[in-house]
Amino acid sequence: MRDISIATPSKIVMLVIDGLGGLPDPRTGRTELETARIPNLDALAEKGICGLADPVVPGITPGSGPGHLALFGYDPVEFNIGRGVLEAVGIDIELGPEDIAARGNFCTIDASGVITDRRAGRISSEKCAELCKILDGLTINRVEIKVYPVREHRFVVVFKGEGLVPDVTESDPSRTGVATLDIMSLRPEAAKMADVANRFIQKSKNLLAKYHPANMVLLRGFSRKPQFPTMAEIYKLNPIAIAVYPMYRGLARLVGMNVAATRTTIADEFATLKETYREHDFFFLHVKWTDTAGEDGDFARKVRVLEEIDAALPALTALRPDVLVVTGDHSTPAVLKGHSWHPVPVLLCSEFCRTDGVTEFSEAACLAGGLGRISSTQIMPLAMANARKLTKFGA
Amino acid sequence: MRDISIATPSKIVMLVIDGLGGLPDPRTGRTELETARIPNLDALAEKGICGLADPVVPGITPGSGPGHLALFGYDPVEFNIGRGVLEAVGIDIELGPEDIAARGNFCTIDASGVITDRRAGRISSEKCAELCKILDGLTINRVEIKVYPVREHRFVVVFKGEGLVPDVTESDPSRTGVATLDIMSLRPEAAKMADVANRFIQKSKNLLAKYHPANMVLLRGFSRKPQFPTMAEIYKLNPIAIAVYPMYRGLARLVGMNVAATRTTIADEFATLKETYREHDFFFLHVKWTDTAGEDGDFARKVRVLEEIDAALPALTALRPDVLVVTGDHSTPAVLKGHSWHPVPVLLCSEFCRTDGVTEFSEAACLAGGLGRISSTQIMPLAMANARKLTKFGA
Repeated sequence: MRDISIATPSKIVMLVIDGLGGLPDPRTGRTELETARIPNLDALAEKGICGLADPVVPGITPGSGPGHLALFGYDPVEFNIGRGVLEAVGIDIELGPEDIAARGNFCTIDASGVITDRRAGRISSEKCAELCKILDGLTINRVEIKVYPVREHRFVVVFKGEGLVPDVTESDPSRTGVATLDIMSLRPEAAKMADVANRFIQKSKNLLAKYHPANMVLLRGFSRKPQFPTMAEIYKLNPIAIAVYPMYRGLARLVGMNVAATRTTIADEFATLKETYREHDFFFLHVKWTDTAGEDGDFARKVRVLEEIDAALPALTALRPDVLVVTGDHSTPAVLKGHSWHPVPVLLCSEFCRTDGVTEFSEAACLAGGLGRISSTQIMPLAMANARKLTKFGA
Repeated sequence: MRDISIATPSKIVMLVIDGLGGLPDPRTGRTELETARIPNLDALAEKGICGLADPVVPGITPGSGPGHLALFGYDPVEFNIGRGVLEAVGIDIELGPEDIAARGNFCTIDASGVITDRRAGRISSEKCAELCKILDGLTINRVEIKVYPVREHRFVVVFKGEGLVPDVTESDPSRTGVATLDIMSLRPEAAKMADVANRFIQKSKNLLAKYHPANMVLLRGFSRKPQFPTMAEIYKLNPIAIAVYPMYRGLARLVGMNVAATRTTIADEFATLKETYREHDFFFLHVKWTDTAGEDGDFARKVRVLEEIDAALPALTALRPDVLVVTGDHSTPAVLKGHSWHPVPVLLCSEFCRTDGVTEFSEAACLAGGLGRISSTQIMPLAMANARKLTKFGA
């Protein structure tokens, strides 16, 4: 890709509707997309070429990290982001290249040290913030330890110091009824990390003793910020991310995107697109609320968000991007109340896309689309090709 | 494949219509294939099984080399042909196993050595031939240097001597406004090649000084003839190539095909097929002019060539090959005036092909075909299977 990509003035907009794909409401037999009135998306589907994309491989339910990396053209199995780093990215923490991040849970242990609740009864986010303050700022063996609240029982620990290597085991046994695990180094260089982490856990236990049910911590996903090749290096693009939630801005930063200032509504995001349109040639535009509604099992709300996106769409199409891609990072069917493995509808609109017979944007219609069933990692090459940003491979 | 292929008397004909796939004429909404009257191809599509094939991967526009290697069942990314070799193959130069070929451009430099035109104003092919004669036949450090004209500003240099290794950089900076680059060795063994090439370039500069605008040369794609496993080794076939243009005969030779004597029309090629039919069991039959018309942006001429092929087809089907494959090495839509990334229609006809509902040979119809969306490298295994030339894999 690096060898055949060229910089051109043409513009690609990738509208990512988080959790786009769905499943039928058992009462109507129609999915969220099939229920929503989305005349603008339908018109794009008719004009463009459609298909279904698998973010990882069929059957695999991706998290937000793999789902987005695939859309940016990075093999999500090869380009793995540690859980700790992803969590840090999700709350906008800037990690240094040597920092190690871990995901933490407050949990409950009994008098003998056995875990009775891995989520400490899902304490409130306020309580979490209060407890994080107690643990924050320790220094162990000249390693500075920062603790940041996430939500409910979740937090992030960042270890800052010399000679830290993330190859250690987790303290979370992933079940109750047993004690927490000692963290062990997986190679000799990681001995210091394991030692510091174990001492941090012991100190946390002491500091939290009187805060039942949140009287212990579990740590997992020790990881360092990955050094991915940037989208500028691979595609010779000058990309910008327009996203409301920190997680998606953070993922975009990991692949070297610029990140637009945060605003809050779909209309705001489309306005940001217009404002930044001259300066960039690739636009990752992320809409979160379809996924949130799906996660909440709120079919009707997911339908409404789809309709809201559709209503805002003319502001995007008025810019007449050379290539417009509309897809999702994964499916989040309301009936499953969570991410799922189902392939995601995708439409690509350009002058040279070779349209198909699809006239509406839905799971069923995309099944007959001209893109067929593709891997989400193939969307970027297709967008690049349609934007005439790829030269020939071989003579 | 080697372990399960068997030699049988059954015959496979692969008709490669170069640049077969297209895009709609904006005035009619119909592609070249959808516009052409091709009743014989439509009848084959109805009788056989159809699909769409990607020569490399979706989004990638292949050159002729990768496009054909994929059709012969060779992964075009793994089996890469150097630019110099491909150019040599394209003008029917027989390369020895140790020879190094490079692609050359005549170019224009100013008094300070800065490139002002990378193609020397696209000098005529006659001028090119005249200048090649001036450079041809030098000997540097006991390396004999042959220079062959290609077309316009293009030529091929072949370095013949001992101890030459092709791992060197290019002298072509791929842009104007800068000086030509020194050729550098990428590993110690290639030092001699780099030295000889640099001295050849210096001598060429002296010899061409008075031939402005063609007063300098640019060299790239230093490469040696690849040693691919032959189709006889992989498939136990005795294949023959029937192709008018040297490039395609050369590509066929690289995979060990026999090559039929050259003739000039589609009808001639079909006659050659008949004449060689008893002696061989695999026939690569190449028709070039669809691609030429597409490259010229001549939609109507591409349609006419398709109709000409269709009209000649009964001479082929009368031979009743056990397996007939009709496809292309890539798409060349007239509206793009060049190769493109769009998948290529493919039809396969055999007694055991499990036909589908497709009744015409076109991009849109093939989308619904029983082969689905496949990689072009999968066509050969399918042809072999349908010819009953593959045994079971595993017990």
